[in-house]
Amino acid sequence: MENLENSTDCKETASPLNNSGSLLNNTDSRPDGRAMGFVLVHAGAGYHSESKAKEYKHVCKRACQKAVDRLRAGGMALEAVTAALIELEDSPFTNAGTGSNLNLSGEIECDASIMDGKSLNYGAVGALSGIKNPVLVARRLLSETQKGKLSAGRIPPCFLVGKGAEQWAISHGIPACPTEKMTTKFSLSGYKRNKRKMELAEQVEMKRKRQSCEHENDFGCLEPVRDLMVEGEENNSACLDTVGAVVVDREGNVAAAVSSGGLAMKHPGRVGQAAHYGCGCWAENARDISLYSTAVSTSGSGEHLIRTMLARECSTAMQAENTHQALLEAMQNKFISSPFLAGEDCVLGGVIVLRCCTCGEAQRSEDIQAVLVEFLWSHTTESMCVGYMSAQDSKARSNEMARFLTFKLNSQIHMHQCCWRTTRLLMSSAFCFGL
Amino acid sequence: MENLENSTDCKETASPLNNSGSLLNNTDSRPDGRAMGFVLVHAGAGYHSESKAKEYKHVCKRACQKAVDRLRAGGMALEAVTAALIELEDSPFTNAGTGSNLNLSGEIECDASIMDGKSLNYGAVGALSGIKNPVLVARRLLSETQKGKLSAGRIPPCFLVGKGAEQWAISHGIPACPTEKMTTKFSLSGYKRNKRKMELAEQVEMKRKRQSCEHENDFGCLEPVRDLMVEGEENNSACLDTVGAVVVDREGNVAAAVSSGGLAMKHPGRVGQAAHYGCGCWAENARDISLYSTAVSTSGSGEHLIRTMLARECSTAMQAENTHQALLEAMQNKFISSPFLAGEDCVLGGVIVLRCCTCGEAQRSEDIQAVLVEFLWSHTTESMCVGYMSAQDSKARSNEMARFLTFKLNSQIHMHQCCWRTTRLLMSSAFCFGL
Repeated sequence: MENLENSTDCKETASPLNNSGSLLNNTDSRPDGRAMGFVLVHAGAGYHSESKAKEYKHVCKRACQKAVDRLRAGGMALEAVTAALIELEDSPFTNAGTGSNLNLSGEIECDASIMDGKSLNYGAVGALSGIKNPVLVARRLLSETQKGKLSAGRIPPCFLVGKGAEQWAISHGIPACPTEKMTTKFSLSGYKRNKRKMELAEQVEMKRKRQSCEHENDFGCLEPVRDLMVEGEENNSACLDTVGAVVVDREGNVAAAVSSGGLAMKHPGRVGQAAHYGCGCWAENARDISLYSTAVSTSGSGEHLIRTMLARECSTAMQAENTHQALLEAMQNKFISSPFLAGEDCVLGGVIVLRCCTCGEAQRSEDIQAVLVEFLWSHTTESMCVGYMSAQDSKARSNEMARFLTFKLNSQIHMHQCCWRTTRLLMSSAFCFGL
Repeated sequence: MENLENSTDCKETASPLNNSGSLLNNTDSRPDGRAMGFVLVHAGAGYHSESKAKEYKHVCKRACQKAVDRLRAGGMALEAVTAALIELEDSPFTNAGTGSNLNLSGEIECDASIMDGKSLNYGAVGALSGIKNPVLVARRLLSETQKGKLSAGRIPPCFLVGKGAEQWAISHGIPACPTEKMTTKFSLSGYKRNKRKMELAEQVEMKRKRQSCEHENDFGCLEPVRDLMVEGEENNSACLDTVGAVVVDREGNVAAAVSSGGLAMKHPGRVGQAAHYGCGCWAENARDISLYSTAVSTSGSGEHLIRTMLARECSTAMQAENTHQALLEAMQNKFISSPFLAGEDCVLGGVIVLRCCTCGEAQRSEDIQAVLVEFLWSHTTESMCVGYMSAQDSKARSNEMARFLTFKLNSQIHMHQCCWRTTRLLMSSAFCFGL
């Protein structure tokens, strides 16, 4: 394992954010006690083309702003995280909602899920077509769960897929959207390009098999075909750019959400981690045995993220004292060298993580209470685009999507480089503000 | 919590099974070293009508026999568990495959998953129609995963749903089966009865709302409508009777599988725990940090089993010294009083669990090696039907489906009675037989 803690080029500017970790030294308490909370979003771990870097950063910032607008208006974490996701899904550049990757049949099928750290309720949709914002359906499933049983004591569903999910959404007032409206020129050109690559790969494979029969182990003359998953290239930015967000609100409640168009050229009906409980997102308020509230959203190869339950693993890891070290270890031990991925030669994924707790000193004060928020991200992919904003900030910020060489991983030798970022944010107020 | 350890009426007869837990005292080693292994199956935790008790027991026994036949023929755990599931799915009495509950639209949509403890690979299908044995599709997905990447480096799917899953199955040689052939007179009559109940419940609800407007809190005149989920009755046996199996083979590999038609009158597209990683089944061979190989299959209210990830939780618990106590605590702390189900007034579920390890004494012997197998089950429902068989047994056995009064559970007062069963099985052989 080399250079796990390489620095990032994320630059700090003057802001309420500080790296010291010291408490109660932020005097920028606003007169409006509702201007509290924090949001961290991602536009996926994968390959983001240079030419569209600006767009990715913009959409991350806009998503942060939408979430903060909700928080400032008195909205809770669940509302804010939904607002961020809608903005991310609506961007034609991200692989979620509008502009999603097309599947083998040239159709859009989306996965999304959302979790509320306060109630621990959860809603998810898989392989959903014909709905502009899949996160809205997941959100509505979560809300309906909270209302209790259906007629004749039936338990409301928390996970719906395919045509049934689409029908349920429409019957609950979420408008249908023709697939053509969600298909962009980028997703269509990506589909055509990928289809050609696949056909070429299959031709090469057949040729290889024929040659193998004739001259065993003599493959020298065959051109290798680039993988759709691993090798990024200009105009092929929609590899793994699932979107997601994590939020903490003024009451210290956390929420997390994730949304994805899934892998390019996936088989129809394939459901990835974005719809899978414990794999795509996780949110859990502090309670008896856990000191910290945590929220996580993941991105990457869905099958790998499912089999490692990475969202929940990272959430559990965040109960350790040192967040940075804990996330490093979780990514290494629970993902990159996980026994559940033994034999996989390329483990691609990324997470955004947020944890918060009431400050010890603040708890003792009657006038000032505060929540300490820490946020981090990590990825094994070439790039990951994130944005973040406090309700006290005037504008959102995003990372520079630093590029790192991603070595192919295997179960014996784990070499990779990660992008790390740890910042402590102090939210304080003269109003009652505690968990 | 009362009477958690109430005895069961499962009766022991002379067999290679013994309750002593002592090792290497079984001299019934067979000349055929392949006649090794053990299977435990369930036909669901729920309500099983008296009139069909015999049928449930028979199908469990037949499923055990099928698995043992595979083991005796040299098959591995994954093959044996699949054979057991096919038999369980084919029974018109179980809520899986043929005879599955019908959904709101009167259609069959099945969930199934399978996990291999050796490779830790996993395959699952959700909301699958038109395939007689959903477990075969899950099994095939798992096999395809083991073959490595698809053309152009695409990661093979581990989870497919709906129409896409059906198309994938057919394109991989699994024959289509018209839904009519999978619908039985029981499932059809159950559907009609449930539909009437729902309509009645909705009428009562509307009346209640009208009365509520006119005379607040005056509901005395309204007849309560029975829940579809909770209250069993004669001829309504298909409540929660998901099926599943856990197997250990001659090499000590474990595998687990589960299959379900889902809740009666579920919304189309609803996916339950049987298709959800970590929730429906779990299998994990012993490795560095875990002494025991474990396999688990669950049954019950899918949404509750998803939100508690019960299969994986029970598997983790089985690394403790005392299996009985560990399962008791897991069911109590991770399910009945789980914070993830706070507010739920009726937590219905059951698990079958198998764990095994090489015997300490056997490890030191060159001539005799042995695997110690322990198997247990537990449920919060009125009944649970299980069957079990060793490859050394001449016939399979099943429990008596003892009925216990199920108290409604809530997050404050947890009162329930469980059916427990712990037996230790020693498999020994003069042939090399170890993990």
